[in-house]
Amino acid sequence: MRLGVCYYPEHWPESMWKEDARRMKALGIEQVRIAEFAWSRMEPSPGEYDWGWLDRAVDVLGAAGLQVVMCTPTATPPKWLIDRHPDILPVGADGRSRAFGSRRHYDFSSPSYFEASRAICTAIARRYGAHPAVAYWQTDNEYGCHNTVVSYSTSAVQRFREWLKARYKTIDALNLAWGTVFWSMEYRSFDEIDAPIATVTEAHPSHRLNYRRFASDEVARYNRMQVEIIRAYSPGRPVAHNFMQLFTEFDHYAVARDLDVATWDSYPLGALEEQWFAPAVKRKYLRTGHPDFASFNHDVYRGMSKLPFWVMEQQPGPVNWAHWNPSPLPGMVRLWSWEAFAHGAGCVSYFRWRQAPFAQEQMHAGLNTPDNRLDIGGGEAERVACEIAAIESANVDANAVVRGKIALIYDYDAKWLFEIQPQGADFHYPRFAFEYYSALRALGFDLDVISADASLDGYAMIVVPPLPIVPDDFAARLAASDAQIVLGPRTGSKTADAQIPANLPPGALASLLPIRVWRVESMRPNVTEAVTFGTEAGHARHWRDLIDGPGVTVQARFADGHPAYVRHGSTHYFASLFDDRLTQTLFADIANQAGLTPTPLGDDLRISRRGNLTYVFNYSNAPYTIEDIADERFVIASREVEPQGVAAYKTNTA
Amino acid sequence: MRLGVCYYPEHWPESMWKEDARRMKALGIEQVRIAEFAWSRMEPSPGEYDWGWLDRAVDVLGAAGLQVVMCTPTATPPKWLIDRHPDILPVGADGRSRAFGSRRHYDFSSPSYFEASRAICTAIARRYGAHPAVAYWQTDNEYGCHNTVVSYSTSAVQRFREWLKARYKTIDALNLAWGTVFWSMEYRSFDEIDAPIATVTEAHPSHRLNYRRFASDEVARYNRMQVEIIRAYSPGRPVAHNFMQLFTEFDHYAVARDLDVATWDSYPLGALEEQWFAPAVKRKYLRTGHPDFASFNHDVYRGMSKLPFWVMEQQPGPVNWAHWNPSPLPGMVRLWSWEAFAHGAGCVSYFRWRQAPFAQEQMHAGLNTPDNRLDIGGGEAERVACEIAAIESANVDANAVVRGKIALIYDYDAKWLFEIQPQGADFHYPRFAFEYYSALRALGFDLDVISADASLDGYAMIVVPPLPIVPDDFAARLAASDAQIVLGPRTGSKTADAQIPANLPPGALASLLPIRVWRVESMRPNVTEAVTFGTEAGHARHWRDLIDGPGVTVQARFADGHPAYVRHGSTHYFASLFDDRLTQTLFADIANQAGLTPTPLGDDLRISRRGNLTYVFNYSNAPYTIEDIADERFVIASREVEPQGVAAYKTNTA
Amino acid sequence: MRLGVCYYPEHWPESMWKEDARRMKALGIEQVRIAEFAWSRMEPSPGEYDWGWLDRAVDVLGAAGLQVVMCTPTATPPKWLIDRHPDILPVGADGRSRAFGSRRHYDFSSPSYFEASRAICTAIARRYGAHPAVAYWQTDNEYGCHNTVVSYSTSAVQRFREWLKARYKTIDALNLAWGTVFWSMEYRSFDEIDAPIATVTEAHPSHRLNYRRFASDEVARYNRMQVEIIRAYSPGRPVAHNFMQLFTEFDHYAVARDLDVATWDSYPLGALEEQWFAPAVKRKYLRTGHPDFASFNHDVYRGMSKLPFWVMEQQPGPVNWAHWNPSPLPGMVRLWSWEAFAHGAGCVSYFRWRQAPFAQEQMHAGLNTPDNRLDIGGGEAERVACEIAAIESANVDANAVVRGKIALIYDYDAKWLFEIQPQGADFHYPRFAFEYYSALRALGFDLDVISADASLDGYAMIVVPPLPIVPDDFAARLAASDAQIVLGPRTGSKTADAQIPANLPPGALASLLPIRVWRVESMRPNVTEAVTFGTEAGHARHWRDLIDGPGVTVQARFADGHPAYVRHGSTHYFASLFDDRLTQTLFADIANQAGLTPTPLGDDLRISRRGNLTYVFNYSNAPYTIEDIADERFVIASREVEPQGVAAYKTNTA
Repeated sequence: MRLGVCYYPEHWPESMWKEDARRMKALGIEQVRIAEFAWSRMEPSPGEYDWGWLDRAVDVLGAAGLQVVMCTPTATPPKWLIDRHPDILPVGADGRSRAFGSRRHYDFSSPSYFEASRAICTAIARRYGAHPAVAYWQTDNEYGCHNTVVSYSTSAVQRFREWLKARYKTIDALNLAWGTVFWSMEYRSFDEIDAPIATVTEAHPSHRLNYRRFASDEVARYNRMQVEIIRAYSPGRPVAHNFMQLFTEFDHYAVARDLDVATWDSYPLGALEEQWFAPAVKRKYLRTGHPDFASFNHDVYRGMSKLPFWVMEQQPGPVNWAHWNPSPLPGMVRLWSWEAFAHGAGCVSYFRWRQAPFAQEQMHAGLNTPDNRLDIGGGEAERVACEIAAIESANVDANAVVRGKIALIYDYDAKWLFEIQPQGADFHYPRFAFEYYSALRALGFDLDVISADASLDGYAMIVVPPLPIVPDDFAARLAASDAQIVLGPRTGSKTADAQIPANLPPGALASLLPIRVWRVESMRPNVTEAVTFGTEAGHARHWRDLIDGPGVTVQARFADGHPAYVRHGSTHYFASLFDDRLTQTLFADIANQAGLTPTPLGDDLRISRRGNLTYVFNYSNAPYTIEDIADERFVIASREVEPQGVAAYKTNTA
Repeated sequence: MRLGVCYYPEHWPESMWKEDARRMKALGIEQVRIAEFAWSRMEPSPGEYDWGWLDRAVDVLGAAGLQVVMCTPTATPPKWLIDRHPDILPVGADGRSRAFGSRRHYDFSSPSYFEASRAICTAIARRYGAHPAVAYWQTDNEYGCHNTVVSYSTSAVQRFREWLKARYKTIDALNLAWGTVFWSMEYRSFDEIDAPIATVTEAHPSHRLNYRRFASDEVARYNRMQVEIIRAYSPGRPVAHNFMQLFTEFDHYAVARDLDVATWDSYPLGALEEQWFAPAVKRKYLRTGHPDFASFNHDVYRGMSKLPFWVMEQQPGPVNWAHWNPSPLPGMVRLWSWEAFAHGAGCVSYFRWRQAPFAQEQMHAGLNTPDNRLDIGGGEAERVACEIAAIESANVDANAVVRGKIALIYDYDAKWLFEIQPQGADFHYPRFAFEYYSALRALGFDLDVISADASLDGYAMIVVPPLPIVPDDFAARLAASDAQIVLGPRTGSKTADAQIPANLPPGALASLLPIRVWRVESMRPNVTEAVTFGTEAGHARHWRDLIDGPGVTVQARFADGHPAYVRHGSTHYFASLFDDRLTQTLFADIANQAGLTPTPLGDDLRISRRGNLTYVFNYSNAPYTIEDIADERFVIASREVEPQGVAAYKTNTA
Repeated sequence: MRLGVCYYPEHWPESMWKEDARRMKALGIEQVRIAEFAWSRMEPSPGEYDWGWLDRAVDVLGAAGLQVVMCTPTATPPKWLIDRHPDILPVGADGRSRAFGSRRHYDFSSPSYFEASRAICTAIARRYGAHPAVAYWQTDNEYGCHNTVVSYSTSAVQRFREWLKARYKTIDALNLAWGTVFWSMEYRSFDEIDAPIATVTEAHPSHRLNYRRFASDEVARYNRMQVEIIRAYSPGRPVAHNFMQLFTEFDHYAVARDLDVATWDSYPLGALEEQWFAPAVKRKYLRTGHPDFASFNHDVYRGMSKLPFWVMEQQPGPVNWAHWNPSPLPGMVRLWSWEAFAHGAGCVSYFRWRQAPFAQEQMHAGLNTPDNRLDIGGGEAERVACEIAAIESANVDANAVVRGKIALIYDYDAKWLFEIQPQGADFHYPRFAFEYYSALRALGFDLDVISADASLDGYAMIVVPPLPIVPDDFAARLAASDAQIVLGPRTGSKTADAQIPANLPPGALASLLPIRVWRVESMRPNVTEAVTFGTEAGHARHWRDLIDGPGVTVQARFADGHPAYVRHGSTHYFASLFDDRLTQTLFADIANQAGLTPTPLGDDLRISRRGNLTYVFNYSNAPYTIEDIADERFVIASREVEPQGVAAYKTNTA
């Protein structure tokens, strides 16, 4: 467990660097990320590199005992490069090129940019690959931010055709796999295929889904090029990328496969404001963030990271980019930091050392204010550093690898498929996955969030939010598991090319769960359906699968008699999305069958376990008393957990 | 009365066709619509026709005793045609061409497409015009769907100029008729006139209205070309087109004039979700549709069809294209079918035989599920077929022509005019026309919905929803009628070129109704005005005409004393739009004066009469008992009408 | 005090002109604005002028004893000019040229249009400059209407680069002032700088702010060109422009500096509907407008006018351009007219003499209906004319210059800055400035609304709504004032180039107010914070500045203890935006300290003082009785003020 910070020496007079480095170290910071937006300073004019300032910055940091996370600066190509190669600019769904003047103004499919990126990455990797202060690398910055994964440029379309050729081999195979006979959309050659935009009504769903997959693959290909260059010039230094919270525009598993460390940028307050949460929820958690939001992302990125994941950017105070930007309550920066460590983080790195007084992010807080005084977040970081030191000197297993007994399957194709054909306008995949996650967390469980391709070994319970396209071997792997398996509605409802399976949903999973979804319906937001589960009552929202399944057991029913929840052996199928309370009730029941004991925690208290430590997080505004834990077992705080407080105690291992 | 179905042999293995045909026939289906999206199979490459598969499909259907409705495939030009003639693509108000990849990607004004359409229509008409199984034709599919009536291409603008020349003869006449002196918008020649888009603020209303009329005329011209080709090669086979529910982007009367059968595509649940209805109404009728929505469309298309109108596409289960897509309650497919027949339909044709598992509409139900089992809707269709057989063998006049005593005037220019200059943002013409219709249906009346140009003979009551532009002879024809005449607000408020009449509204109708609308006001949704009608109180919404009329009788007043409803002889004028209850009260009062007896039915029960049968439709969730009708008079069901049920009994003709 | 009207002789048969002029004069109208949209009649073809009709129109008006306000017709360049010089058309943020067909279709930076404007202005100024009937001039019409200040054309970008060069001299200076090092946005020359559009995410705020300033300067430059031509050919005739209500897209102070008369176009009902007011407020003031809205604009334009300001266009009845357009209550046209005079207007000119029956504004009422009968508004104008005559013959100082004891600072840069970086999505500067103004008006005060550059002499109280960028000498000028000074939140929060000040906000004002805003937060609409001020409680909305300031006095606190309102000597700082009642409470308290006595008036009553007259305006629906004023002091109406009524009495000067 260690702390880091994001630092921009190029933003500040060189005279400040040394003192900055000293104060970082004194605060307890161990690693410093630099240079991800500094291309115009590295190469002020075409081919004319200026490394002097960066050499000195790295030296200053190294001399202070700090480890540098060096970044490739490709998120912000400079103006001269754009002017030389305007085809670098991505093209929007409106057919217009985006312009220079902010960031991420590049097309992953641009050959010019691929070459320019290769050149700058090689230059920086060659120069700093062996520098003793450089301990890690970051490729680019927040791939896809600002809706930049998908481009509709000529370059992209050309590469898409090649991609299709590789996937389908013949145009006849594509026509068949997609079903282009519908509406006379048949193609005679791959060269007739354009980007799926500007159509009179929705473009073909298989066309759209594959364009999304292609665009995702382009990100992975681009990142791989960077990683390979870094590995060649800087062997032994782990390579990371900083993913974004709940970002789903490309397949993160594919990109993470080429990295050593999956990291993410954690802004709980901005996320709360910008995501789907209801206004009352946004008010309730205004200055704390939702208790499960950061956790969910921790578990997502933990699940795809070879080394312990990091928070590469941790919100240190108010941000600038949400519609409204409240100030975190005192204590929250500390709480968020510990929450990351409790979930297995190797590093929490704050963004940024000091608030910049200029440009787009001037209203984004740092650990220090623009006039260089330590801000609240800075003080809390310091406290966390002290607490880390205390724990690490204690006789506990604080850096253990985290592993849950419950797996939640999380998928990117699902997001795209449901976005392309939602069938109900609010069928928002990440929300539903999150709601399953949140219900399980409210029951006190630790979860692993994994890909459908990941190993299912060792889990007592496997929870599958709506997963339309399942891997070919998924049914077999589930069948081989001893776990209780929960499948959300619409699971198995599509083939790999976005058709309805010939045997109807759950398609390939029918071997596991002998039902047939013969009809579906989506429900507008002001409609719910009553559901009865034994003596419990609740309601269904958004969606209903109407199912036949003579051989399965009906566990809950809708008011009109249709099954709402059926089971077959250890496989459980939810035919709808239930309200939070009913979802928790059902999960608790199934968890018990899995041999797991729920600990109902309510809305605002959360528990995480790492090694032999149990962490308690109090998101409420009232103090919370932990019962039945002896005082001496506490390594952070005590049994009295203050509002927005954290406690950790040694697990009573008999 | 007969049933039909829409079928896509090209979507299924040829091995399935024969059994499909057999099952259709066995279910009670008599006609099958095919081929409207099959251009890419008819002509896979330029000029290379492949009729083999279609020949075989028609033969199979014919051999099973089914009648074929053959379609021209022009709604979906294939990719090779677009690539050869990119000018086929329509241009949006954003100045961009739409792209290939869905359907209806053509510009009605494209000379290339006109010629290509002529060629394919000639080819298919020549090949199948005399085929014994081909009993009917359909031109194209859903003209205008996905906002494709109006294009802003160079071709369209060029043709618009010619259209203007034909209408106005000289540019001076146009300048005068429009009033282009306002804001120096005067033109020196027709060639200076562009499409009314991309202007800094709203373009000139006369310009906009005439562009809409031009675009509408282009649809009629295009359809006429197809009809003439079909008539030449397939004499004696009625020609139809399938219009859309409540679609108003072109003048349907003008297109219908060239057809034999006006048909429409009925999707009551999708319509409810997508139209103006309040959220609570959308919830109430979630799985039944609004009780008057299909009826309104039946009466609209009945009014413009030479032969009995059809439902060409009947919703058989959930659809895919609304924001939310609920499942119809059991019984609704039957109810909708009988509702169509009760309103005079000649055929109800379900869309589609079997749900397709691929492409854009894969989530659209059919009579059969994708795995080829009969779905609920299929079972209900079978029941309807049995009931038809029973009725047709009974001694009743089930196929009589339907004719109402009340005429409701429905107009397309009105929609465009109010869209162009609403004066109040929610002044939505189809809604207001529907609300008048619905109020009269709730009083138990059968209505004819007709054009303002249609004969007014024989009506006891003529109801005119807001009709800004009236035909030149309208006042005279109304004056010649014995009917009670009800004029909605804004009637007669504009000249043919969208100016205010010199004598102020009601303009040319002042001879009938000597009032002067000296001021108007529109009211935001949270504002209403109290209205008193005798001892009744209600409120006005959306709009007020403030009127002078010393010679007319004030029947109801607003709270501030202004007249809300005046009459002059048998002419009644509503100066506002009233709440539903007050509207019903006023219509009931006027109907009584017209010698018509209202039968208040409430929200959920509806009655229709055809020949000597009275049909009762129960949209509620409670059973309904029909009183005072002897058991032996029932030809469908009984006096106990189940929820979502239908009954029909012989009218007691003395 | 005099009345005027807007008249369009070109819209009506010449045979009507003489009688129109006679009736105007008889009604009490003294001045007539003409010709602002008549270019196509002045110059029907390139270079071929037709002055005959205009000569005759001016002669007819002059002969009737009316003074003409002659306009340059540049708001509506004719079609032939656009076809010759398509570069006249402005370019939107979407990169597309706007089109001919409405008005204001020109780019302020187009060299072609600058020359064409010079030519037509010279022609009209030369022809009518010395005409005895021409008493005033108006340049163009409503600069910027329909979002036309900012264009993104090649011409604009080219001129923007020159503008930047003049401002920053070197590209290094620009890079430093903006902070382009952030995200590698550094420029190597001015020619690399584009318009700040089409970027992937928000463009650089300094870039955006300066583009707004540039566009604003272009308006001033264009207007100056027109003014100089008019002054050359028509010396001694005051030159005016008609600004728009609450319009903020260019710096009105800069344009007004070149004019003699600042005038504005007053449409209180349309403004209410289109502005930020809550639905309940829109309902409450539906047919009266908000009691402070016209007043605020009167004071804004009074503050920048050399001669007494005018209302150039006064709403005379319903308008056509708001989403809903209600009818003003009887009396409101009179009330609005007197409200203008009470605030110091020299003229109130109604728009328009007669409602036009054609084109875009055909639903906009006039003093006469389209069938040429005097409308309600016309009758009220006549009453106002009579009342003016009565007052001017009385022994009162009715035409005195109005001067308030309280100054409210109003700024255009502030609007742009907060629009570019709101930090909270509803941080709407004009709204907050208006709410301060309204609170002070509800306390019975007369205000001056002035620029931050204006003299502060003579004020007892200076109120500064959020003013992010303060003039260099502002602190010194405030310090030199004896007034009580109220600074809203975010005041002094930015440098001239949109950076955070090095010493943090309030930046340069820290000398006056020794605090440090070390953190800010914005709050979503469903969030408020409780505030306690002595025994009073209220709440804060939208925003909080968190401040340090050991040397200042905390006057009010938020519930979490942070200061909500602090003072230092005579300087008061509000750290948030408070609810209306608390805002009034604080202003009343501070006003008392300034020696000013509040007169709480409630929501619907307003008082204005001009010379020795006090005017009372009753916006409510109940009569209001003025106490303690002797009957004989009334010069308009009496102590019993009817709903929507006006009264005026002589002030009791001891």
